[in-house]
Amino acid sequence: MFSHSRVKIAIIGAGPVGSLCACFMAENGYDVIVYESRTDIRLDKSTSGRSINLALSERGINALQFIGLDNIVIEELTEPMYGRMIHSVDGQKYSIMYDINKSKCLYSVSRKELNAFLLTKLEKYSNVKVNFSYKLIDVDFNSKLLTFQKLLENQQQETVKPDIVIACDGAHSVVRKHMIRLPMFNYSQTYIDHGYFEIKLPSSETKDILTPGHLHIWPRNTFMLIALPNKDKSWTCTLFMPMEKFPLILESEKEDILSFFNEYFKDFMDLIQPEDLLNQVTNGKARTLISTKCNPYHVNDSFLLMGDAAHAIVPFYGQGMNAGFEDCTILNQLLEEYDHDLKTVIKTFTSRRFQDAEAISDLAFYNYIEMRDLVARRSFLWRKKVDNILNKWFPQTWIPLHSAVSFTSIPYKQCKLDNQWQDQILFRMFILFATFFSIGLYFIVASIMSKTLQ
Amino acid sequence: MFSHSRVKIAIIGAGPVGSLCACFMAENGYDVIVYESRTDIRLDKSTSGRSINLALSERGINALQFIGLDNIVIEELTEPMYGRMIHSVDGQKYSIMYDINKSKCLYSVSRKELNAFLLTKLEKYSNVKVNFSYKLIDVDFNSKLLTFQKLLENQQQETVKPDIVIACDGAHSVVRKHMIRLPMFNYSQTYIDHGYFEIKLPSSETKDILTPGHLHIWPRNTFMLIALPNKDKSWTCTLFMPMEKFPLILESEKEDILSFFNEYFKDFMDLIQPEDLLNQVTNGKARTLISTKCNPYHVNDSFLLMGDAAHAIVPFYGQGMNAGFEDCTILNQLLEEYDHDLKTVIKTFTSRRFQDAEAISDLAFYNYIEMRDLVARRSFLWRKKVDNILNKWFPQTWIPLHSAVSFTSIPYKQCKLDNQWQDQILFRMFILFATFFSIGLYFIVASIMSKTLQ
Repeated sequence: MFSHSRVKIAIIGAGPVGSLCACFMAENGYDVIVYESRTDIRLDKSTSGRSINLALSERGINALQFIGLDNIVIEELTEPMYGRMIHSVDGQKYSIMYDINKSKCLYSVSRKELNAFLLTKLEKYSNVKVNFSYKLIDVDFNSKLLTFQKLLENQQQETVKPDIVIACDGAHSVVRKHMIRLPMFNYSQTYIDHGYFEIKLPSSETKDILTPGHLHIWPRNTFMLIALPNKDKSWTCTLFMPMEKFPLILESEKEDILSFFNEYFKDFMDLIQPEDLLNQVTNGKARTLISTKCNPYHVNDSFLLMGDAAHAIVPFYGQGMNAGFEDCTILNQLLEEYDHDLKTVIKTFTSRRFQDAEAISDLAFYNYIEMRDLVARRSFLWRKKVDNILNKWFPQTWIPLHSAVSFTSIPYKQCKLDNQWQDQILFRMFILFATFFSIGLYFIVASIMSKTLQ
Repeated sequence: MFSHSRVKIAIIGAGPVGSLCACFMAENGYDVIVYESRTDIRLDKSTSGRSINLALSERGINALQFIGLDNIVIEELTEPMYGRMIHSVDGQKYSIMYDINKSKCLYSVSRKELNAFLLTKLEKYSNVKVNFSYKLIDVDFNSKLLTFQKLLENQQQETVKPDIVIACDGAHSVVRKHMIRLPMFNYSQTYIDHGYFEIKLPSSETKDILTPGHLHIWPRNTFMLIALPNKDKSWTCTLFMPMEKFPLILESEKEDILSFFNEYFKDFMDLIQPEDLLNQVTNGKARTLISTKCNPYHVNDSFLLMGDAAHAIVPFYGQGMNAGFEDCTILNQLLEEYDHDLKTVIKTFTSRRFQDAEAISDLAFYNYIEMRDLVARRSFLWRKKVDNILNKWFPQTWIPLHSAVSFTSIPYKQCKLDNQWQDQILFRMFILFATFFSIGLYFIVASIMSKTLQ
């Protein structure tokens, strides 16, 4: 462990990325104070209905490895998903494995449980303090002053002056909101037309329909239902569809709600009591999905955005948390590279990370189309077969996009470029094949014609 | 005049667009209160150095016509510009007229003077009140409450509850800042890499170099200087270049500053005393350029963004104010179309205007490349000639892009589409010409060859 104990690092947000980042900085010997606007998630007994289950994969696991938590998290908190199980409208099912190496999988994990686990780990560091119910209300970038409102202590205010501020306060980051006012800060927020509605399936004997080891998808072209397994054998299901369609379905008569689910998700309805579904529909709420981009991620040499605060993406690649965890790995690499010259590290982070964050943001948009539509098409399955064959023949050079993103640490931008190159090669192979086929066909027809005319 | 005196309209911002919009609503019989955070611009004696002179054109003039101000503004406040005068590095000059109809021109006008003029007009309406030094500090979209801080009255706060709020508070709109927090509000802000620095040329005998009736441009590929005429015969000049280059030039030694200007803008240096230039450089400041987009422009059926607050664009097409003024025309059209059903008008404005605002934003980016680089190229002059010939032959169907944007009210999106269509036609004509030329050449060569071989 290095000794940087005089440097005070404030981390805003004690979500999964904030907690992990705090562990990283503590492990590096810095004095860390974490400020979280909510109460301790471990004391919260409610299920919030707003956390799409997370899919932990390679990049996230690599980051956890640095603090020695990879194996224990996988064993104690996650359920493996080796492929997608596609449910047709007629009740047919077929599985599409994620990788030719059948042991490769995504790990389904509850955001809340992972968050709680990291917080407990975090508290073991003597050089870390976590302040809950500290709501950030003002940021002064020049004097490095942060003002908090203490929600539990009669709304009292507290102003602190850390050396470095790392903001991991999510897609609606307060620190970023203050950055928007600064000159030369580029920012965009895009709400996609589609939103989501979460449905809990209680643990029960569902093995016939919800086979273990899969992420289940009911692709219905413009909308889809998915189900991710939980450790307690329950399932977290999410209905994605255009926001304006939700009221038409979820706010209609009870019979209409049930007939919608029966029409499109018949086998799913065998798993849930109609009353339970109606109850969840009545008490639940459709939620929006935001994608944000900004540049730079830093202000001066002392403020840095990480995770969703820097690059919130849509959830369809299961990469939001993994990208945030990978941010921690990259911060750590920069700390080593620049021998803990924090000012340089903070100013370098944007250029090291920005293009990869843009790439995964674009890929996540694309993957929604793949999940809700393409997976149900024959052309997709053919492409997958060709990909698998080429991957077997050239394991180092032909890594299919989904495997590169989920099962390697190849920079996201490179994954995207490799995929474009693969598309080009396949297109050229197709043209070549079609040409040979046409020439062959011509000679066959010509020889038949000449025989007939003889 | 209609009678809608019970409906209270709050307009945020008393800049050119806010003032004009207030005139429109007053003309329509509504009760209007305008809130402006600054003091009355008419009392401000300083020249701020941050207003690129505006180029009033067709769309702006049309809007002024509605309140009967078009002729008086043109006569009393503006200087016509019939074309661009290009200044080469070697001191050569050539003029490129804006239109084949040589009476068509842009009208150079000082932002401040136009603003003051509109404010004076505005005060003549009995159903309008203007509050200066009212800084908007809070917006409650659901209860329609606006809270202001009265900057002149001991910072007292005042909360008002109008029926409709129209925010014309510019590129850094406070109302829009509050909208960013709302779900489904899409927003982007982009600072371009280039910034600007303003230089005043005092009125003097400059006719040889700065010929009247022109917008003068010194295009230098990655940067440029422009000069727009003022009514008092002075000129407002603006140096545009990459932001990171400004310190290298403007913060260097006096000799280096002068040698830069002498190298690239030799004839310009004949118009200004070196001490005056150095003085302006020392006291001035390079400023950034922002482009913003958002969607929707409204919240509920009572808040609407207009002008730069809705769509701030870069200044290179001289269309920022014209687009804002055209917003007023469109609002007025909707008021008539929906018989003053304000809720519908506000909810319809975005869909009526959004695509045109996107188009002019893109065109404005493009025009910077045209101004600082393309105008100096032979290919640009050839294209201009072809455009002019086709425009003469087909005056209704072939309107060159710059003329369509500046001298018609054709929706911006249509201007952009028409230009793409024109590019296609010209490309095909070129291919056709090249084919005929090749065939002709082949026959000529073949006949010479056969003669030679005989």
